Amino acid sequence: YIHRSFKHLRAQVLACVSDPDLLESGQYPSDVKERAKSILAACGGQSVGSYTMSHGIELIRRHVAEYIERRDGHKANWQDICLTGGASNGIKNCLQLLCNKVDGKDTAVLIPIPQYPLYSASLAEYGLGQVGYYLDEDHNWALDINELERAFLEGSKTHAVRAIVVINPGNPTGQVLTRNNIEDIIKFAQKHGLFVFADEVYQDNVYDKDSKFFSFKKVMTELGAPYDSIELASFMSISKGYVGECGLRGGWMELCGLQAGVQAHLYKAISAMLCPTTLGQTAVDCVARTPMPGEPSYELWNKEKTAVLESLKQRAKMIVDTFNSMEGFSCNVVQGAMYAFPRIELPPRAIAAARADNKLPDVFYAFKLLEETGICVVPGSGFGQRPGTFHFRTTILPQPKQLQEMLDIFKDFHQKFTKEYS
Amino acid sequence: YIHRSFKHLRAQVLACVSDPDLLESGQYPSDVKERAKSILAACGGQSVGSYTMSHGIELIRRHVAEYIERRDGHKANWQDICLTGGASNGIKNCLQLLCNKVDGKDTAVLIPIPQYPLYSASLAEYGLGQVGYYLDEDHNWALDINELERAFLEGSKTHAVRAIVVINPGNPTGQVLTRNNIEDIIKFAQKHGLFVFADEVYQDNVYDKDSKFFSFKKVMTELGAPYDSIELASFMSISKGYVGECGLRGGWMELCGLQAGVQAHLYKAISAMLCPTTLGQTAVDCVARTPMPGEPSYELWNKEKTAVLESLKQRAKMIVDTFNSMEGFSCNVVQGAMYAFPRIELPPRAIAAARADNKLPDVFYAFKLLEETGICVVPGSGFGQRPGTFHFRTTILPQPKQLQEMLDIFKDFHQKFTKEYS
Repeated sequence: YIHRSFKHLRAQVLACVSDPDLLESGQYPSDVKERAKSILAACGGQSVGSYTMSHGIELIRRHVAEYIERRDGHKANWQDICLTGGASNGIKNCLQLLCNKVDGKDTAVLIPIPQYPLYSASLAEYGLGQVGYYLDEDHNWALDINELERAFLEGSKTHAVRAIVVINPGNPTGQVLTRNNIEDIIKFAQKHGLFVFADEVYQDNVYDKDSKFFSFKKVMTELGAPYDSIELASFMSISKGYVGECGLRGGWMELCGLQAGVQAHLYKAISAMLCPTTLGQTAVDCVARTPMPGEPSYELWNKEKTAVLESLKQRAKMIVDTFNSMEGFSCNVVQGAMYAFPRIELPPRAIAAARADNKLPDVFYAFKLLEETGICVVPGSGFGQRPGTFHFRTTILPQPKQLQEMLDIFKDFHQKFTKEYS
Repeated sequence: YIHRSFKHLRAQVLACVSDPDLLESGQYPSDVKERAKSILAACGGQSVGSYTMSHGIELIRRHVAEYIERRDGHKANWQDICLTGGASNGIKNCLQLLCNKVDGKDTAVLIPIPQYPLYSASLAEYGLGQVGYYLDEDHNWALDINELERAFLEGSKTHAVRAIVVINPGNPTGQVLTRNNIEDIIKFAQKHGLFVFADEVYQDNVYDKDSKFFSFKKVMTELGAPYDSIELASFMSISKGYVGECGLRGGWMELCGLQAGVQAHLYKAISAMLCPTTLGQTAVDCVARTPMPGEPSYELWNKEKTAVLESLKQRAKMIVDTFNSMEGFSCNVVQGAMYAFPRIELPPRAIAAARADNKLPDVFYAFKLLEETGICVVPGSGFGQRPGTFHFRTTILPQPKQLQEMLDIFKDFHQKFTKEYS
C-alpha cells in the first residue's frame, strides 16, 4: 500500500543479498552494498539460500537490540530478541507456552474487546480460554483497571488466568495508551502474576500531537522493582510503520523476565519450524538499523518516512472528521495504528431487516455498503463489541484522493440507508 | 549448501522483483525480466511488499499445477495447490484438520519409524496420538503392509487412526519406494479410510539407477476407482532438490480428494497467518516453471541442475561405500533424498559406558565423535529405531572433497572407538 518507488533502501539491499553479483556493479549507494555484505557475511555459506538459526541471524538480532535501546533509553539484550516471520508467528509461539493446565484448570488469557482476531483464533486453536475485557470507548478506548479486575475475577472462576494481551497502538481501535494507563496495566499484571503480551506492531504509527508511544518494556523498566521483572513479550512487525512490507514476512519479539529454562524451551519449540525467511530478516535489518545522517541513503529514506507518516496523519484526521459529520456516527480520534472504528447507531427498522435476512445488524450494514458501493469494511462483531452497540473497522490506507472519494460515496450511502430504514 | 554462483535464475528473478528498477537495466536476460514482470503484475500494487492471498499468488499456483501435470502426466487443479512457507507449514496445517475426537476417541496418525521429527513434535503439539510403523531395514526401508496392519490394529485399541504419513524419498532413511509398494500403501489407506500425508520434498533427489520417483497422486490416479478418491496431501519444498533454497522458505501442497467444505476450512485456518512470503513464492515459481530449451536462462540452469544432482549422486555412493567398509557398520543404498542412515553395532562395553554416562548408546557415540573429531551426526534415537538397534543420520551435502576428508576422519575415529570398547 506504499508505492514501491518509495522503497529504495530495502529494495536495493534485498536485491543485493538475492544476487550478490550486484555488489560488483556501480549502481547502488555504498551504504546499501555495505549492509548487504554484512548480512551475507552473517549467513551460512554467505548465501540467503541457507537456513539461519531458528531465532534469526545474530547480527540482525543485535541491530534490533540497538534499535530498542535507542527507542527506550534502556539496555536490550540481543539474546532476548527472536526474529520471526511476522508478529503473528511470535504471538502464537508465546501463547503455546501457556498450554499446560494449572492445578487442574485450563489456562485462559485476557484479551481486549474489540480485538484483532488472531488472538481469539489462536486461543481456540490451542484450547486456551478467552476472557474478554472491554476497552473504554468513552475514554478513547483506554484500559479501565476496574474492568480488568472484573474480567480477571470472572475468568478465574473457571480458568487459571495467566496472561493479558494489550494492543498498543490499538487494532482495530486506533488508540495510543497513555503512560499512566500502561503503568496501571503493569501493576495489575504484576499483582496477578500475568504474562504480558504487548502487541506493539504499530509503534511507529502515532499521529495525534498529544499522544506518544511508550513501550511496555520502557515503562516497566522505569517503574523499577517489583514491576521490572514481570514476564513480558513485545511484538514488532515490518508490515506496519512507515515500511508496510507485509509480503516479506518479517518481525521480531523481545522477551523480558522469562525464566532461562522457559526461554530455552520456547527457542527449542521454534526450531521445529527451522527459521524465519532470510529475506524477511534482511528487511527487518533495514527497519532496525535505520540510516544515520551522513550515510548516502539517509536523505531518501528520511524523505520517504516523513512523507508516509505525514500522509497517514492527514488521512487519520480526514476519516474521523468525516465520520463524525455523519448522522448516527461517533468516532474516537485515530491517535495511532491504521484504523478507524466508528460506532454507528442503526435504526430499529434496519435491525429488524437484518434479523429477517438472518444477519447480525453490523454485518447487514457492511454487506449493503459493499453491494451498493463496492466499499469493504469489517463489521465490529468480527472484533467483538459491547452488546447492543455496532461498529465497523476501516483502514486509513487508501491514498488521500481515493480516501476522500471513498468517504464521499460512503456518506451518500449512509444517508440513503438511514432514510430507507427510518 | 549449494554454492551461490550456481543460482543465477532464482537470484536474478528475486533481485528484479525486490528492486523493479533493475528491470530497466540491461544486465539481466530477457526471460529473467519477463518472469519478474509477470510475478510483479500478479502482486497487489505490483509490489512484493503487499500481502498475497493466503494460499498464494494465483499465477504461481497455476505454474505449480502445470509442473505437476508435466511430472505425472495427469491433470492438476491449480485451486488445489496451496503455496506454503516451506513444507513444514503445510504439514502442520493439514495435521490440524485431524484434531477433533471421533466417537469419543482421540485421533492418531501412523508415522514411519525412523521418521523426520517434525511429525512427532507436531503430533505432540496438537495433542494427536502417534502410532509408529517400522520401516523394513532388511528391504531397503520399504513399507511392509503386514507391519502397517499391525500398527493400525495396535493404535486402534486406544485411538481413531485417521491418517498415515509416508516420506518418499525417505528422511532419514534415503530409500525411494517402488511403484508396487506405493500401490499397496494406497490400497491399505483406502481400506481403512486414512488421509495420506505424502511427504515428497525429495522428489528431485533420486540417485539410484534402478529407482524412480512416483508421486502418490500419480499412482492413485492410475489405480483408478476406488483408490483415486482417497484423501491425499502431497508436500513439496524449495529447500531440497537441486535448488536448496532453505532460507527463502517456500513450498507447496497439493490437496486431493478433500471434501469442499474441509478444504475451505483449511484455507480459512491458513488465512489467520496472512500469507507465505512473496519472495519465497517467487522462488517457488522459479522451481515450478523450469526454463525451457531455447530460453536465455536454460543452458546455465540446466548445467547447474545436472552438476548438482550428479555430484549428490557421487556423494551418495561414496558415503555408503565407506560406511559399508567399516567394521560393525551396515548401510542401505542411498537411493534418494540427502541422508545416509547406517546401522552400527556397538560393543557391550560401549553400551555399558553410555549407561554409566547416563546417555543412550547412540547418543554416547555421537557425542564422542563430535568431541574427538568435530563431526556432527544425529543419533538414531532422535528419529526412532527398532529397540536394541543403533543408527545415526548423516547428510551427503558436504562437497565431495570435504566429504571424503570427513569420512576418512570418521573411519579413524571408529577404529579407535571399537578398539577402546572391545
